[in-house]
Amino acid sequence: MELLVTYDVDSTTPEGERRLRQVAKISEGVGHRVQKSVFEDTCTPAHRPHLKARLQSTIDTELDSVRIYHLDRGTFQTARHLGAVVDIPHTGDWIV
Amino acid sequence: MELLVTYDVDSTTPEGERRLRQVAKISEGVGHRVQKSVFEDTCTPAHRPHLKARLQSTIDTELDSVRIYHLDRGTFQTARHLGAVVDIPHTGDWIV
Repeated sequence: MELLVTYDVDSTTPEGERRLRQVAKISEGVGHRVQKSVFEDTCTPAHRPHLKARLQSTIDTELDSVRIYHLDRGTFQTARHLGAVVDIPHTGDWIV
Repeated sequence: MELLVTYDVDSTTPEGERRLRQVAKISEGVGHRVQKSVFEDTCTPAHRPHLKARLQSTIDTELDSVRIYHLDRGTFQTARHLGAVVDIPHTGDWIV
C-alpha cells in the first residue's frame, strides 16, 4: 500500500520543532522524504491505522495538520518532479 | 483527472515570496489548497501539460521543487486529514 503523507507543523516554538522532527521520523520509518513535508510511505494495510494513530498522537491538532493519501500501487512512479531534488539532512538529534 | 500538487519554494527572499505566491495562484486556478503547500487540482488531460509548463516556468529549478501526482478519480475523497484545517488567506496581492 502506497501512502502519501503531507503535513504542516507549526515549528515556531521549540515544542513545535520537536513535533516536526517526530512527525518526520515517524513518516521516514516507513518510507522516504520527497519534499520538506512530503513523504512517500509504503506499508501493509494492517500497519496503516498504527501509522495514523502515531501521527495523530504526535501533532497538536489545533496548530498542525497531516494528510494521508491512500494511492494505488505504482502511483509514486508516475509522479512528476520539477526543480530541485530534496536533500534534507536529519535536523538535530532524532528523539528515539 | 485528479492532480495532487505539492511544492517547496524557497521564500527567504522577496523574489522567492513572489514565486511562492505565483505557484499557489497557478495551483489554486485549477483546484483548492488543503495545506500550506499542497493543492488538490482537477483538470482535463489536455490541460495537464499546460499546468506543468506554467509551474516549471515559475519556479527556480535550483531552489524550488514541485511534485505532481496523477491520482485516480475519487482519491481526494479517501484522504485522511488529521488536525487543523487549512485556513490561509491570500497573502498579499496576487500577481495577475
